Amino acid sequence: MRSVDEAIEAQLRAALPIAAFRPLTPAYLEEPRGLFHGDGGLLIAPGTVDEVSTILRACNDAHVPVVPFGGGTGLVGGQVMQNARPVILSLERMTRIRAVHPTENVLVAEAGAILADVQSAAEGAERLFPLSLASEGSCRIGGCLSTNAGGVNVLRYGTARELCLGVEAVLPDGTIHHGLKRLRKDNTGYDLRALLCGAEGTLGVITAASLRLFPRPARTGTALLCVRDPSAALELLALAQAQLGQGISAFELIKGTGLEFLAEAGMGGPQPFAETPEWSVLIDLGLGPSDDPEAALLTLFEAALEEGRVSDGVIAQSQSQRTALWKLREEIPLANKAVGAISSHDISLPLSQVPAFLTRADDALAGLGPFRVNAFGHLGDGNLHYNVFPPVGEDKSTYLSQRDAIRTAVYDLVEVYGGSFSAEHGIGRLKTGELARYGDPARLAAMRAIKRALDPYGIMNPGVIFPQA
Amino acid sequence: MRSVDEAIEAQLRAALPIAAFRPLTPAYLEEPRGLFHGDGGLLIAPGTVDEVSTILRACNDAHVPVVPFGGGTGLVGGQVMQNARPVILSLERMTRIRAVHPTENVLVAEAGAILADVQSAAEGAERLFPLSLASEGSCRIGGCLSTNAGGVNVLRYGTARELCLGVEAVLPDGTIHHGLKRLRKDNTGYDLRALLCGAEGTLGVITAASLRLFPRPARTGTALLCVRDPSAALELLALAQAQLGQGISAFELIKGTGLEFLAEAGMGGPQPFAETPEWSVLIDLGLGPSDDPEAALLTLFEAALEEGRVSDGVIAQSQSQRTALWKLREEIPLANKAVGAISSHDISLPLSQVPAFLTRADDALAGLGPFRVNAFGHLGDGNLHYNVFPPVGEDKSTYLSQRDAIRTAVYDLVEVYGGSFSAEHGIGRLKTGELARYGDPARLAAMRAIKRALDPYGIMNPGVIFPQA
Repeated sequence: MRSVDEAIEAQLRAALPIAAFRPLTPAYLEEPRGLFHGDGGLLIAPGTVDEVSTILRACNDAHVPVVPFGGGTGLVGGQVMQNARPVILSLERMTRIRAVHPTENVLVAEAGAILADVQSAAEGAERLFPLSLASEGSCRIGGCLSTNAGGVNVLRYGTARELCLGVEAVLPDGTIHHGLKRLRKDNTGYDLRALLCGAEGTLGVITAASLRLFPRPARTGTALLCVRDPSAALELLALAQAQLGQGISAFELIKGTGLEFLAEAGMGGPQPFAETPEWSVLIDLGLGPSDDPEAALLTLFEAALEEGRVSDGVIAQSQSQRTALWKLREEIPLANKAVGAISSHDISLPLSQVPAFLTRADDALAGLGPFRVNAFGHLGDGNLHYNVFPPVGEDKSTYLSQRDAIRTAVYDLVEVYGGSFSAEHGIGRLKTGELARYGDPARLAAMRAIKRALDPYGIMNPGVIFPQA
Repeated sequence: MRSVDEAIEAQLRAALPIAAFRPLTPAYLEEPRGLFHGDGGLLIAPGTVDEVSTILRACNDAHVPVVPFGGGTGLVGGQVMQNARPVILSLERMTRIRAVHPTENVLVAEAGAILADVQSAAEGAERLFPLSLASEGSCRIGGCLSTNAGGVNVLRYGTARELCLGVEAVLPDGTIHHGLKRLRKDNTGYDLRALLCGAEGTLGVITAASLRLFPRPARTGTALLCVRDPSAALELLALAQAQLGQGISAFELIKGTGLEFLAEAGMGGPQPFAETPEWSVLIDLGLGPSDDPEAALLTLFEAALEEGRVSDGVIAQSQSQRTALWKLREEIPLANKAVGAISSHDISLPLSQVPAFLTRADDALAGLGPFRVNAFGHLGDGNLHYNVFPPVGEDKSTYLSQRDAIRTAVYDLVEVYGGSFSAEHGIGRLKTGELARYGDPARLAAMRAIKRALDPYGIMNPGVIFPQA
């Protein structure tokens, strides 16, 4: 594998408009957690799919690595290549919403469109694009698709892959796949769309996508309900699903530790309970025009109270109260950052295994040291962010030597319970070791065969998913 | 490619229990429409995934073709190999429901489980497995997944692929992929599950799957509403979605021709309208326990009537009335069969293009001959079964020479409107020519590369998706 050199740079400059070349600022060589640092490269921001094709064809011929770059918000180092100077192919100039089809509930966006702009374009047509995550103000839809992003609305609407009807993409050899179909049903061979979604830029570059829209729920409601423990939270989920079916848009678990971190960090706004609940659940409803979400939440709360599944709760009575409740959930990651995690784990579990996992994981960590654990996240999907912190008043630096032991303890248990060591963030460069260790061997062999078949020279995002040779 | 011979048969008989060998009856060599006839083979019905692995390993080593066989109900010849005697690998003995996890909304079934049995197992746990199609009493879930089956509930719940959380599968070289995860979120590399779903048995054999269940809608309702034309049907869909959001389980278009065929064939039961409506729509709702579907349908009907989008209609007032309305829709394919189609087309279109397509397709066919067209199907998904029949009193045999011209006229127009020539039935052996003609070249090249990578000797279901060499 050859780094970008003068010859290939000259070739690319001759083949592309000058506007495609932008200064390589440090932002392209870092990722949010500071775990990976790039060693330079040639930044190119193509303006069209044909320019993307030109770049890939040239790099494929010259065996030069290409790192596709979206919003740079990924948490597993997928956007930062180390030990080589690749072409950094940024989608930042391909940001158009190409079309909105409200009657079809479809929107076609270029890969560089910011997620929040896609949401806004849907809203402008009185529709909902439900993908919603912390970085939505800066992440780009192409990155969301390439990493199969999740977020808070997966329970109801699915992951990024499931929200994607078709893609336009450039394959490693520069050929353009024109697959922007707007169809719900299209059984004409292998699902290349699904393969590219979640491939983290290792099989090509998604340049545009047709995306599913939904009717906007006419009435929304939010409640924060206190539960005894994660088991009770799951019982509450079952009760809520029996009463409200698909009306539940989000079902988020919050641990008392998270609320304490918010208070410590002065974040999240005022907290609704005098005493911090050990566990609580944030429920979001999206219902029809003739429904009453506050009444539905009250019915749920009363039934759950009677069955001993909740002990206290607040139901938002206004949009500002909704926003305030969501602010608690949304700022937990910021509070975590302020406290400083020793190790963070984006895991998922079969729903019924969540309580047993949490008990045993806490026990395992207690055997390693006096750690604090903040477990929170998308309980409706079985997706938890299980993050480990130093004791009160201590700094994570003291404990960094134990990071590997913590990770192994957590992921080994995840494996025992049939879970995933990467629920929504992906593999990137961070978790290639875990994939090799925990991945199903037959699937890994098939993945390697597919990678070799579509990218024989290994130019696409080397080091991601598969360790760099 | 070598047909099964005595040597390989002896090897397989030595390696497998005697129960795995069953007599090859004609049912394994025919498909429902009689378009493909097999030339024999060795029928093996393995009882375990290890036995499937043994078969594939032996066939891969000997370069002997393998045709995976589910319920044999597919309509594109995917289950019948011609001009060779393959191993016909039937899943009929792997029919167990391995587990039901109601609190997780997950069910794990072996590939040979009949779809109706999977539905019943879900119902037994007070859950819904929403995949529903005409052949549900005899098709097997492995076949449904391998062909990414659709049916009437895709609008709300997705296709078979979207209902599948994970698979256990045997790859062509006999390695077993243990991927029966019960996770909503699992971003750990390429989506082999999505690739195997819809690969029509050309990349391996799905032996079991973990499937998504849903809360059973507490209250259901059905209406048959008369609309002026397909445009009005789409306006009605938009209105219904605005009022009822995801509460709409099915939205089926019915053409007057279909109702006439039912009457001609003495099928479908009594028809609800004195005068056959030129177009009508069957709407099915699944709502929560506190909802009133009849009232919701009446509200919809009144609003649509006021806006001139419907002219008449019936709303089922009982379960038996619901069943009667659905019987009309469900027996249209039988009536079609009784009349005898010259050519049938399982197509999908971007929703907004459906009316224009129907007009232009009817015009194109009128230029070819005095045909009758029955267009019906899952309008909510843009999926139509566009079937062409001889004039009243004539037999299709007179017109079979025009079949190719009809097909080309229909599919060329589908292509113009950005649709698909195979919405839910797949490619099989019937549509390999159409795939080569209309498929995106870059995607076809990628598909061929993936096929070569995973099945280098081409043993898996030769002739399906790719023309037989």
